[in-house]
Amino acid sequence: MNDSVAARPGATVESRITAFEDGVARKRFDPVATEEPLEIRLRAGGRSRTVAVTMRTPGNDFELAAGFLHNEGVLATRDGLLGISYCIDRDVDPSQQYNIVNVNLATRALPEFAGLERHFTTTSACGVCGKANLDQLEVRGFAPLADDFTFDAATLLALPERLRAAQNVFEKTGGLHAAALFDERGALLAVREDVGRHNALDKLIGWALLGAKLPLSRRIVLVSGRTSFELVQKCLVAGVPALASVSAPSSLAVDLARRFGITLAGFVRGTRFNVYAGEGRIRS
Amino acid sequence: MNDSVAARPGATVESRITAFEDGVARKRFDPVATEEPLEIRLRAGGRSRTVAVTMRTPGNDFELAAGFLHNEGVLATRDGLLGISYCIDRDVDPSQQYNIVNVNLATRALPEFAGLERHFTTTSACGVCGKANLDQLEVRGFAPLADDFTFDAATLLALPERLRAAQNVFEKTGGLHAAALFDERGALLAVREDVGRHNALDKLIGWALLGAKLPLSRRIVLVSGRTSFELVQKCLVAGVPALASVSAPSSLAVDLARRFGITLAGFVRGTRFNVYAGEGRIRS
Repeated sequence: MNDSVAARPGATVESRITAFEDGVARKRFDPVATEEPLEIRLRAGGRSRTVAVTMRTPGNDFELAAGFLHNEGVLATRDGLLGISYCIDRDVDPSQQYNIVNVNLATRALPEFAGLERHFTTTSACGVCGKANLDQLEVRGFAPLADDFTFDAATLLALPERLRAAQNVFEKTGGLHAAALFDERGALLAVREDVGRHNALDKLIGWALLGAKLPLSRRIVLVSGRTSFELVQKCLVAGVPALASVSAPSSLAVDLARRFGITLAGFVRGTRFNVYAGEGRIRS
Repeated sequence: MNDSVAARPGATVESRITAFEDGVARKRFDPVATEEPLEIRLRAGGRSRTVAVTMRTPGNDFELAAGFLHNEGVLATRDGLLGISYCIDRDVDPSQQYNIVNVNLATRALPEFAGLERHFTTTSACGVCGKANLDQLEVRGFAPLADDFTFDAATLLALPERLRAAQNVFEKTGGLHAAALFDERGALLAVREDVGRHNALDKLIGWALLGAKLPLSRRIVLVSGRTSFELVQKCLVAGVPALASVSAPSSLAVDLARRFGITLAGFVRGTRFNVYAGEGRIRS
């Protein structure tokens, strides 16, 4: 499961830029966050199929694939995996390698793709709507989280600073989203970064899956950007009871959190934050 | 082309929240940016096909569809359109309507979908890479922009404040990305907002397409978030020579801008900014 291999593209590249400041232009080099496509291929029963191509920042690619597939309902636990590997073509330039990940499933056949594709897009009936997205999660068997997990408001307020202190690439480039996992006392367990905010959370959840840490009960996830429907969905599927952000949630993110018993906090800044759902878990 | 109809979902909803501040919890209502799926359907020659479902903030949906299809190479100009309309099912709850847009093409048949799907994902050869994405744009016929367009550094520095002054929904919710179009002297021509930053730019370019203003020569686009490959690609396809952001670009965004002669500026803040490509257009 170790994806540290030679010649892998880095998380940043040095780029020659012109910096304008107070009317003066100067040439210099500046680090820029890498963005490259990653193709995720499933293999089972001697067959292979591409299920997604996502633009991502290289690094933790196996976690990204595992987390993505977990959210799509293809991979419930680590036991469902035979292995994950890069598909490296020796004829290809090293800078272009490491952009395909093969996920070998322990099942005898590839999953049903009609159902899988429904998850990737949504229903196509006239009347497609956010509520249908929520209904679909019930069809997949998800019920409201029921637990006695609570945590202090002060714990939540401390998280953004801990995330910032742990972000490596963002420091250099200013160009990455982050997702971080904390325990109930606010201790940082893991942080992942990516140009795509969905990818950052997929990497974090994939890290948990590969470490057999799912479901993520009694854990808090903090994300650096806005909170969309898709981010709350990923938390639900991974069993995360609390999702916080330094920014705003969307309406459908709020609806999803309320319907499935997830605590959703936003604008966690300084001494204040807003709670949009599941405020019962927070002790003021 | 007017998509102002009754019962359309709004750009914000009032949400009941708990605001924690300095240890005190208070219930109140707060506006949250709406997120709902939009399905884009193509119609031509008596046939119909769904080409995308995107999570978006309702409003300017026809522009969103037009801009999306322009970027995908399906719709070059307004002349390619017979019309755009909502697909309203009277049996469906009003809150769930207005989430499907039918785009009626002037062509006799639907476009070739094998080719179209290639754009929606990417090549599947072992060795998928960012460079292949750039090559594909050359295959589609795009060449480096060649123009004598220049603008003052001071013009660029004035844009973020003008964007902020024009953002309506962000003021209320803090939850939206924005894309704005400016002329060469920095006058604001249009601004569009969305929970998805790609959608905000699609709406802006769709606005230009529906108003027969393409290509957007001698124009500057400013976006509120990070600059990814996909945003630069949308600018290239719409003929925008300069893209600026208050945040960071990705490596592939820089590569694309350099290869196709687009000016790419980042971190436009206060009295400074960085230029990653096409600095020749900027007079300091």
